Amino acid sequence: MSFNSFGKIFSFTTFGESHGKAIGVIVDGCPAGLKIDEKDIQKELDRRKPGQSKVTTQRKEADKVEILSGLFDGKTTGTPIAMLVHNTDQKSKDYSKIKDLYRPGHADFVYQEKYGIRDYKGGGRSSARETAMRVAAGAIAKKFLALKGIKIIGFTREVAGIIAEKTDLNQIEKNLVRAPDAEAAALMEDLILEVQHAGDSVGGVVEVIAKGVPPGLGEPIYYKLDSKLAEAFMGINAVKGVEIGSGFASTLLRGSENNDAIYAEKGKIKFRSNNSGGIIGGISTGQDIVVRCAIKPASSIAKEQETITKKGKKSKLSVKGRHDSCLCPRAVPVAEAMLAVVLMDLYLISKCSKI
Amino acid sequence: MSFNSFGKIFSFTTFGESHGKAIGVIVDGCPAGLKIDEKDIQKELDRRKPGQSKVTTQRKEADKVEILSGLFDGKTTGTPIAMLVHNTDQKSKDYSKIKDLYRPGHADFVYQEKYGIRDYKGGGRSSARETAMRVAAGAIAKKFLALKGIKIIGFTREVAGIIAEKTDLNQIEKNLVRAPDAEAAALMEDLILEVQHAGDSVGGVVEVIAKGVPPGLGEPIYYKLDSKLAEAFMGINAVKGVEIGSGFASTLLRGSENNDAIYAEKGKIKFRSNNSGGIIGGISTGQDIVVRCAIKPASSIAKEQETITKKGKKSKLSVKGRHDSCLCPRAVPVAEAMLAVVLMDLYLISKCSKI
Amino acid sequence: MSFNSFGKIFSFTTFGESHGKAIGVIVDGCPAGLKIDEKDIQKELDRRKPGQSKVTTQRKEADKVEILSGLFDGKTTGTPIAMLVHNTDQKSKDYSKIKDLYRPGHADFVYQEKYGIRDYKGGGRSSARETAMRVAAGAIAKKFLALKGIKIIGFTREVAGIIAEKTDLNQIEKNLVRAPDAEAAALMEDLILEVQHAGDSVGGVVEVIAKGVPPGLGEPIYYKLDSKLAEAFMGINAVKGVEIGSGFASTLLRGSENNDAIYAEKGKIKFRSNNSGGIIGGISTGQDIVVRCAIKPASSIAKEQETITKKGKKSKLSVKGRHDSCLCPRAVPVAEAMLAVVLMDLYLISKCSKI
Amino acid sequence: MSFNSFGKIFSFTTFGESHGKAIGVIVDGCPAGLKIDEKDIQKELDRRKPGQSKVTTQRKEADKVEILSGLFDGKTTGTPIAMLVHNTDQKSKDYSKIKDLYRPGHADFVYQEKYGIRDYKGGGRSSARETAMRVAAGAIAKKFLALKGIKIIGFTREVAGIIAEKTDLNQIEKNLVRAPDAEAAALMEDLILEVQHAGDSVGGVVEVIAKGVPPGLGEPIYYKLDSKLAEAFMGINAVKGVEIGSGFASTLLRGSENNDAIYAEKGKIKFRSNNSGGIIGGISTGQDIVVRCAIKPASSIAKEQETITKKGKKSKLSVKGRHDSCLCPRAVPVAEAMLAVVLMDLYLISKCSKI
Repeated sequence: MSFNSFGKIFSFTTFGESHGKAIGVIVDGCPAGLKIDEKDIQKELDRRKPGQSKVTTQRKEADKVEILSGLFDGKTTGTPIAMLVHNTDQKSKDYSKIKDLYRPGHADFVYQEKYGIRDYKGGGRSSARETAMRVAAGAIAKKFLALKGIKIIGFTREVAGIIAEKTDLNQIEKNLVRAPDAEAAALMEDLILEVQHAGDSVGGVVEVIAKGVPPGLGEPIYYKLDSKLAEAFMGINAVKGVEIGSGFASTLLRGSENNDAIYAEKGKIKFRSNNSGGIIGGISTGQDIVVRCAIKPASSIAKEQETITKKGKKSKLSVKGRHDSCLCPRAVPVAEAMLAVVLMDLYLISKCSKI
Repeated sequence: MSFNSFGKIFSFTTFGESHGKAIGVIVDGCPAGLKIDEKDIQKELDRRKPGQSKVTTQRKEADKVEILSGLFDGKTTGTPIAMLVHNTDQKSKDYSKIKDLYRPGHADFVYQEKYGIRDYKGGGRSSARETAMRVAAGAIAKKFLALKGIKIIGFTREVAGIIAEKTDLNQIEKNLVRAPDAEAAALMEDLILEVQHAGDSVGGVVEVIAKGVPPGLGEPIYYKLDSKLAEAFMGINAVKGVEIGSGFASTLLRGSENNDAIYAEKGKIKFRSNNSGGIIGGISTGQDIVVRCAIKPASSIAKEQETITKKGKKSKLSVKGRHDSCLCPRAVPVAEAMLAVVLMDLYLISKCSKI
Repeated sequence: MSFNSFGKIFSFTTFGESHGKAIGVIVDGCPAGLKIDEKDIQKELDRRKPGQSKVTTQRKEADKVEILSGLFDGKTTGTPIAMLVHNTDQKSKDYSKIKDLYRPGHADFVYQEKYGIRDYKGGGRSSARETAMRVAAGAIAKKFLALKGIKIIGFTREVAGIIAEKTDLNQIEKNLVRAPDAEAAALMEDLILEVQHAGDSVGGVVEVIAKGVPPGLGEPIYYKLDSKLAEAFMGINAVKGVEIGSGFASTLLRGSENNDAIYAEKGKIKFRSNNSGGIIGGISTGQDIVVRCAIKPASSIAKEQETITKKGKKSKLSVKGRHDSCLCPRAVPVAEAMLAVVLMDLYLISKCSKI
Repeated sequence: MSFNSFGKIFSFTTFGESHGKAIGVIVDGCPAGLKIDEKDIQKELDRRKPGQSKVTTQRKEADKVEILSGLFDGKTTGTPIAMLVHNTDQKSKDYSKIKDLYRPGHADFVYQEKYGIRDYKGGGRSSARETAMRVAAGAIAKKFLALKGIKIIGFTREVAGIIAEKTDLNQIEKNLVRAPDAEAAALMEDLILEVQHAGDSVGGVVEVIAKGVPPGLGEPIYYKLDSKLAEAFMGINAVKGVEIGSGFASTLLRGSENNDAIYAEKGKIKFRSNNSGGIIGGISTGQDIVVRCAIKPASSIAKEQETITKKGKKSKLSVKGRHDSCLCPRAVPVAEAMLAVVLMDLYLISKCSKI
């Protein structure tokens, strides 16, 4: 029950800093008998790794995963699955310039305040590099969920106000921003490159959907599906908002519009709409789970900013180097992973609902 | 570590159904030596209780709290504090009409699916009546936080698109909707009454602020201040979205606009803006904590809706009786309570950050 | 995840002091559909309550339980089950004499040190009165386990060196000490009354057995069946030792004697002995679970003892009044309860072992 | 909150199988600012590693630890500390003979039952090899506790009935069995070698003591110091019993003998004896913490035993090779580690006892 762990039955614990020796994760509570190999994990890591395209950071990390335990004859044994990724690009940078500077929008100041010591290399533990290990844990959850007929899909819904109006899932991996709308994607890419050129950054909205989720997942009152999802998503670096179903837009509807009317079709319960985002009372309804999160513009920008040193001296800062100008494309697999781990945990827990 | 508990060091566990004998809470992990009496709790419960005004439900519940344990000579002793509220209005209604009907927007269907049995009286456990116990727990947290110089304030920021543009904290308890803007409040009230008359409901946005929070609260990576707040707020009945600081609006800003520039004043670190909502990297910065949540229009409406019976038969439903047409005014103290309990838990945990 | 909670999936949280208004428990994580009524609980409480016989304390408490939530039509609904017992004998005593004295063997001193405040009436929270609520939670677990073919039996194995050599389960409730051996029981009773008369007390060994436990319960490495049992039993007031199977006596055997030889009978695995007490590697083997705990002689004795006051002044103490001279008979149902709750929790968790 | 984690604030999670690639641990919740280096860890691992002497297994493992994260400039940063030990001796053995056999006293059968799959190489996850990682975590806890004036000492108290009557702490590391009595140690060694020669094994009692523990550690009711210690010790491989202070022997004393009389000396509270083992009501008293655990004779013996195959066929088994004939000498550092981690966790938690 540590501060670097997530989940109750299916849980994982991560470690590692941005420029330390390695990052890693121990996945616990995975039932025995699940086929897993390193390729399953690597495939997902490759979608998150840096240097994928011109719209992402150019940092070079292979993010090559190694599974250290928990498998036998290619299957899970019910024991912890440890996965390790060595940092290869850890020594390439000179940190003397930012060692004593607090980067605006970054956790430098708060780590210093909280711990009295901080690893300033690439943000240390506060770096989004940690999210690679969520993706690794999520890859296992996805394999489990697939066996149960549950599929997870994520994409960039908005970049700086440019909205993907279409939801063509086949488009997602065909463009650099992972948008489900080719036209919007082109506009997003252009904007990101323009902003990058200007030494600035943009935010956006990432959306994730789970299809095939059975009704009954989620534990009222304090282990609800929606509250655990909110926790999971708000905990992703740079996320400043989370909404489910009609979300904030529901506040503009009347109850008669927002309630999803219920009908039956061939003995199965159906809904006329999905404003609930597949969750009512904290429990899945059987409709698609739909979650969106607001991702702030990346904090690392080349533009000069006002700040202070650790000792309180006035200073200026321009974050040079290889940074994502828009975090959305690489946040998509992270958001998918968090949806997957929450669903798997609640799937297992739901086995105990009835005698 | 139960499903009806919240918090790690300062934690609470609730029980009770809408129309059962009683609702109650056990608050655990409150340090010894805190002065508490029933009036502290009652004062907060009175702000949440039904029947307060013409814009809330007319159900009659005194919500009179009784403290059963954990105090000695008026002070906490470090042992669990149990609080009980008897339901007085529990038998006043005939449920035969809705016993087998699934109310749209309500958890009737999912409870039936999940548990194979459900208490249909007033929604049973899924009723927002449970939130009274969060308010009771929150009242204790508020007393503790006040000792540490931390103050919690909540209000209705929006109702169905009507925005409180001013933030005059003195106004909040002077109007029925708890808005910090007298003019907007008047418009909101009118709209709620109009909608109520039409047998419909509206949603809105509740905002809560914590002032005086020291830097350093929040545990990376999976017990972050923002992720626990998101969990806490999304778990409140009817909440469909949570945002912190600039939230979803941050996605429309450039990084250079959204980053809060840092400067020093009299040896203290300051920020030029508070787009972070007082939280960076999951840790408090020392600025005001600012959280907003989207509250969907109430699901219980008099207007006729399409639905089915438990056996799948087509039906119509009109939820008669005493219901809130806008949940925001009564959600304000609940949101305050959840902010308070999260902060108190993390305040205590933060004592362990340094050797 | 509080300090007054026990269990992971099936869990419970207790509150209340010896001489407060009431004691109570919230049982969480009980699957829906289990038939429960107050009589099931009362039956077990009656086995633990004070004033049962001449060998137990004469304090008068009806220990009448009231269920406040979690049931519908006589069945569990999956929501928390709150149970309450009002203290009726709470005001009958004058505490002025022991208010400032530290009773040897009692937690007076440590509570004062830890919390800076303590409820001195009957020991407050540290009183074994709290164990009534474990018995209440255990009564629910027993009902669940019975459905799965698991039966829990407890008895007094030893009193002050007098050993029940026979294990005749039919004898247990036929004598006042709950020993499974009529002859030994008679000797134990005589000794307890003699010691009581002398103003002193004796200890003993309580043994509990679970029959019908399937193989596979218990989660390695840190939620093992034996480690959770050890935690559960050592946490019972006055317990100073716990052993499983051959326990401490195993240290006198050779490996070739202590290993339980394995054979098969009609396709079922069998063991030639049960030195393991039904647990190997932290997981149930299918044999009887056998746990014994050492119960120290009761600390409250009439004999004069050396002690000090809160202010450090030398003093003498003679604990007058109604106390158990041997805690074993009333500890039997408590030990049974703790075995039951651990098994139920692990039974539910084991549903997640395989895909 | 996983099954392979231990602790609440200071916690750790282990992974790895006996003959897998590596074993490892993530230590979480260690406060920032603690000086740690690999030598601190290695020193403790060397006391547990195989091949130390003629009375332990001859398996060759360097157990060389590598710290992967959580340190900066030689100090802890408040982030997780990952430690890794590669298995070097992992491929040296042919397992074809025991692959389908259930070894008596070992967890082979229960793993197969529970998971439907098992890693039969050296017992896989159920091997005591995992305890190396507890020692690593404990090494960190020991460093922290030392700063607070708390010292942990462990030794072998008994081997097969041979009792170390003296408690000369200087003797412990001077003999191969780690007994605090040179004379008894010689007898123990002789017996172990004799038994080893006979293809058999012996058990014993390991005792651990903590000196300098302040009063007030331990959280009633379900996170008591003694119940967490019992959990911690019973979870060590081969432990079948745990006792604190006078333990099982207390059942032979009268209350007037077993109660520790209280007196004051120079304003400090003192006790005439320490039958409580330094713990009353689940809270430390300030006296030495004294815990003993019963360690069964090692299950791996060369003597032929009766067993069956996975398919239920009758068979004979003789466990050849390099095994400990008495587990006590190597269990000592493991027991010390478990005492250390429990104390550190409760030390941190106790910071929250008072406002």
